[in-house]
Amino acid sequence: MQNLITPAVLKTMIPCELEDYRAGGEDLRRKLTHAVMRDLDAPLAWTMNGEYRSEFGGFFPVQVRFSPGHHKFQVAVCSPGEVNPAWMVVLLTASGRPFSVVRTVPAFNPDLINHTVSLIACLDAEGYSAENIIRILAMEGDL
Amino acid sequence: MQNLITPAVLKTMIPCELEDYRAGGEDLRRKLTHAVMRDLDAPLAWTMNGEYRSEFGGFFPVQVRFSPGHHKFQVAVCSPGEVNPAWMVVLLTASGRPFSVVRTVPAFNPDLINHTVSLIACLDAEGYSAENIIRILAMEGDL
Repeated sequence: MQNLITPAVLKTMIPCELEDYRAGGEDLRRKLTHAVMRDLDAPLAWTMNGEYRSEFGGFFPVQVRFSPGHHKFQVAVCSPGEVNPAWMVVLLTASGRPFSVVRTVPAFNPDLINHTVSLIACLDAEGYSAENIIRILAMEGDL
Repeated sequence: MQNLITPAVLKTMIPCELEDYRAGGEDLRRKLTHAVMRDLDAPLAWTMNGEYRSEFGGFFPVQVRFSPGHHKFQVAVCSPGEVNPAWMVVLLTASGRPFSVVRTVPAFNPDLINHTVSLIACLDAEGYSAENIIRILAMEGDL
């Protein structure tokens, strides 16, 4: 099964198909999550973790969280599903704010997601705060 | 400030106003969350907890979770915000499935939310599984 979820397949999957994978059980959901993670790149010294049960809130069929070592914020990649019709890249913090959906794309687009995460990591390394990273990403707009 | 967030005010609040409360800091967000909780009723022997930081994932300006004593599932009430334009009642479990958005309402409607939570509690007390509760709520449709 794991070989069937190629990037091309992921790009065609609609929200209810992604929900079907979650409903199919933990094994199937893990394969879907790992298929997404195979196409995503963690910035140097950042961690990348998928949600397997409900550890990140449980709202999306696939959720992948990127964390820099300082843990001042996290970047969540959330798949479409019952809650949301599109893929989202979200910048969020343990304290609950700032919070921002920094990118929304209708179809899985690993290049755009990787660019967004990489840009956030670059701005973070340059000393920008989470608030300012959100502002700069809003200015950049959709590519 | 806490006296200003009446049920009538909550009904008029649009997603970006709810996000403004979260962005305004933990005190302001707590007041908003408590204003929502004041209008909601936990079923007998269930707990009701609000999100104050990011303990339930951090995706919504207001999230209130209801839990029956057996913890087989939880019911989350999620406010509109950047992620979602409407109020949602979500049935979810620690294992990640089943998962379902069982009600969506554009404006805050405590009567409908209380009815939904109460119906879930009643079906649970009658021995229905989370899967069957989701099916019955889907059949009931929007009131």
